[in-house]
Amino acid sequence: MFQALLWQLPLAAALWPKPHIYTTGSTTVVVNPSTYSFQAVATTPELEDAFVRYRSLFFPHSTSPAPQALDAGLVVDIFDTKADLILGADESYTLDINLDGTSVVAAKTVWGALRALESLSQLVDFNFSTGQYSFSGIPVHIEDAPRFPHRGILIDSGRHFESVPQVKAFLDSMAYAKMNVLHWHLTEDESFPIASRSFPELPQKGAYSDFEQYTWEDIAEVVKYARMRGIRVIPEFDMPGHSTSWRNSHPEIFAEGCLSQSSRGAFDPANNQTFSFLEAALKDWSALFPDGFLHLGSDEVPASCWNNTKDLAWMKTMGFSNSSDVFNYFVNQMAGISQKLGRQTIFWDEAFLSAKPPQDAVIQNWHDASLMQKIVDAGYRAIYSSNGGYTNGWYLDGLKATWENMYVLEPLTNISSDKAHLVIGGEGCMWGETVDPSDLEFTVWPRAAAIAERLWSDPSANSTAEAEPRLQRFRCQLLARGVHSGVVGGQGRDAPPGPGSCVQKPKVLAQGEQSVFI
Amino acid sequence: MFQALLWQLPLAAALWPKPHIYTTGSTTVVVNPSTYSFQAVATTPELEDAFVRYRSLFFPHSTSPAPQALDAGLVVDIFDTKADLILGADESYTLDINLDGTSVVAAKTVWGALRALESLSQLVDFNFSTGQYSFSGIPVHIEDAPRFPHRGILIDSGRHFESVPQVKAFLDSMAYAKMNVLHWHLTEDESFPIASRSFPELPQKGAYSDFEQYTWEDIAEVVKYARMRGIRVIPEFDMPGHSTSWRNSHPEIFAEGCLSQSSRGAFDPANNQTFSFLEAALKDWSALFPDGFLHLGSDEVPASCWNNTKDLAWMKTMGFSNSSDVFNYFVNQMAGISQKLGRQTIFWDEAFLSAKPPQDAVIQNWHDASLMQKIVDAGYRAIYSSNGGYTNGWYLDGLKATWENMYVLEPLTNISSDKAHLVIGGEGCMWGETVDPSDLEFTVWPRAAAIAERLWSDPSANSTAEAEPRLQRFRCQLLARGVHSGVVGGQGRDAPPGPGSCVQKPKVLAQGEQSVFI
Repeated sequence: MFQALLWQLPLAAALWPKPHIYTTGSTTVVVNPSTYSFQAVATTPELEDAFVRYRSLFFPHSTSPAPQALDAGLVVDIFDTKADLILGADESYTLDINLDGTSVVAAKTVWGALRALESLSQLVDFNFSTGQYSFSGIPVHIEDAPRFPHRGILIDSGRHFESVPQVKAFLDSMAYAKMNVLHWHLTEDESFPIASRSFPELPQKGAYSDFEQYTWEDIAEVVKYARMRGIRVIPEFDMPGHSTSWRNSHPEIFAEGCLSQSSRGAFDPANNQTFSFLEAALKDWSALFPDGFLHLGSDEVPASCWNNTKDLAWMKTMGFSNSSDVFNYFVNQMAGISQKLGRQTIFWDEAFLSAKPPQDAVIQNWHDASLMQKIVDAGYRAIYSSNGGYTNGWYLDGLKATWENMYVLEPLTNISSDKAHLVIGGEGCMWGETVDPSDLEFTVWPRAAAIAERLWSDPSANSTAEAEPRLQRFRCQLLARGVHSGVVGGQGRDAPPGPGSCVQKPKVLAQGEQSVFI
Repeated sequence: MFQALLWQLPLAAALWPKPHIYTTGSTTVVVNPSTYSFQAVATTPELEDAFVRYRSLFFPHSTSPAPQALDAGLVVDIFDTKADLILGADESYTLDINLDGTSVVAAKTVWGALRALESLSQLVDFNFSTGQYSFSGIPVHIEDAPRFPHRGILIDSGRHFESVPQVKAFLDSMAYAKMNVLHWHLTEDESFPIASRSFPELPQKGAYSDFEQYTWEDIAEVVKYARMRGIRVIPEFDMPGHSTSWRNSHPEIFAEGCLSQSSRGAFDPANNQTFSFLEAALKDWSALFPDGFLHLGSDEVPASCWNNTKDLAWMKTMGFSNSSDVFNYFVNQMAGISQKLGRQTIFWDEAFLSAKPPQDAVIQNWHDASLMQKIVDAGYRAIYSSNGGYTNGWYLDGLKATWENMYVLEPLTNISSDKAHLVIGGEGCMWGETVDPSDLEFTVWPRAAAIAERLWSDPSANSTAEAEPRLQRFRCQLLARGVHSGVVGGQGRDAPPGPGSCVQKPKVLAQGEQSVFI
């Protein structure tokens, strides 16, 4: 039970997610945290911020103040310091750790440099006996780049409010797994937590309480914090359903069929005021969320709300024969507004199943994964996040979906190679019915790490047996950094089964015995 | 479901823990975060640190940099800036919020001033509609002091390693509840995570892994961090049982009866080397833990380990007739060592039940609470932390122990008034079998808040109905500050039952309807 080495192979073989190409040597060199330098050939604000952050992640036990006289350490060379954080931004990097302990990162953009810093931080070893930091298994050479450009997690601040400190901590944890999209499901039937400059009454009447709201500045701060970590924030304003909380202040744009307190509401497409209102509200928020994408929901529409005298009359004048026609109209109106605001639109897969959005829309698959093929065959870009019956999908609220089940899922299943580029990535979806700041991280991690590796690494990385010890080490690193990751194995949100190491299944190593992980 | 006010009485009536005396008015005054000043008549490092910390707790939505031109704000007047953080340090304070929004704190020591800052921070209101901070229900006058001087939580880093960032975050959360003792159960049968300067082999061979150890500097940093928050750190080195992890490196001081890998070990009192070794080890750590108290365990001793030829022969020479005599000898030897090191000793209640420690020892009650009376009647000081059958006690690993059950327990039950001063306080015990950084905060909070109030507030505060809305508001504040508190109600570690506010049971307020909390 004692003194298990968590890893005995060269550490470069332990990285999570697994890099595409790496070679290792057999030398160990001690590095001095007091003189180790972080230098940029040409810098950016994000890189400078990361240098400060990663100094304490490299050297967590050092309590000395920032050193005065710096020696050689890390040099980061970025080719294009102006590259913006957008879908498809180049995140590739090469990383070399030399025999003298110095390192060189070369990256096309700062976003790639951030991923390199994360890799390098996972390679710093600390020896409690000597008190020394070192790089082992060097020289190390890594060539790495993500497999998919969109690697996200959805959090749901409409069903439970997630406080700003919690969201920031969550962004930290995402960066450790090299994820790059926070899909922020902000509004729901249940609550409307986000400030609106044009319509302040939306949160005033739609938030859960006088505690559970985001100010304009709160959101701006989160977006900036995310950018510093190379994470895009894509806001979702779910509509025309999942929108009941808007009705508290604006019943006039809701379908008459569902105006009672007890019913779930739906926006009224028969009312031109609906679209002018939504355009004004979204225009406001587009100043707050600089990302090029806007998620406009469109799942689980309570179409029966439109089954009322006024809407039926309007449908007749429009030549619409059923609620799918109405839904299609709504989706296309909203895509048009989004385009006017300079945004591309993401919809849940109902917008593909029951409507025909513009060809530049992105469809997020949450129903059966077999739909992915149909979406891309129809020429749409697709995001993989099938719920897989809450057991074999990427819905993190499916507590029976183990990390192993999540790990073996493959977004390109049955996708022809000429369509593969249309699959832009995937997301783990942490729906908020039973998740609030108390258990968010505990429910997401470590399972979302399986998703992160599937989306980053070579598809040949598909053995859960090979992955498990790496994932256990990654979990230990998450805990060491203050992330509240649950245990590796079992269901989501399982408590540790009994006393034990962070790997939970430590094995007693007899004298000379090889590590269980080899 | 929408827009419930979390509190409608004057906020001073919402404080957790409840202050002893408070009066409120009916005026509201806006305060400007950009110019609000924190000033000390005479200052200390801890107060200066707290001023920085509480500025962001007062004004969490302000992202402006520290203001240049300060206006009136808070003035703190400390009578004795030299008062050390010890058992019984004066934590009383008075707090006045005046009609112009300025505040005055008067405290005998900085430790009382820290409690006052926490109270004041819970009284700052933020209005999302106007973007303004305010004090309402003013003028406020508070006179407050803790009922018991020892208000603690035990965490168990021997069964699961708790990383330094997690322990620091935990200390933050304790300070929010005005708790002042971290009882750090550091070593266990399962692992030995703490550095030793004289015996580095202890963690080298006793820790779970090469990840799960505290360096000397890590511990020093935690102790300093705690002091800044007015929290004493009392280390526990459990012995002579619960010590198996020491045996990996030092089998020579263990009883021969339990030397096999599979058995739980016990120190060997027949061996003088045992005591010289333990004295040297404890002398080391006494430099690291400045507190005047040292906890030396003594619970659940596997006395059968002493039932071997060597120890039986030794017992005969000592005139000992049974293992209780041996245990008594061990306890008194260790109390003597502790005294040589300038420390008072705390023991678990077996040291009272089966031995007779020196009269200046403190006995921590974990068996039935009826023992408290016997402990103080015998003239010992006592700490209340009965497990209450894991349902009606202060063992936080008893998940069936609800906050209500914890709240109504009374440490002075059946204690005569002339002995009451011997009850120095109590502790919630968060044993670590199924708790690690993933679920520590989630399991402790909000239930430990019930303990915190019992130990701070007037004993007349004993209605769970009165306490519940205050506790819900306190939980919302914990979440807003990034503490992972579970829901109020139900068992420990319950996930939120469904979508909802941080209070989980929001009620729709009709126009003019009174708050559900009044």
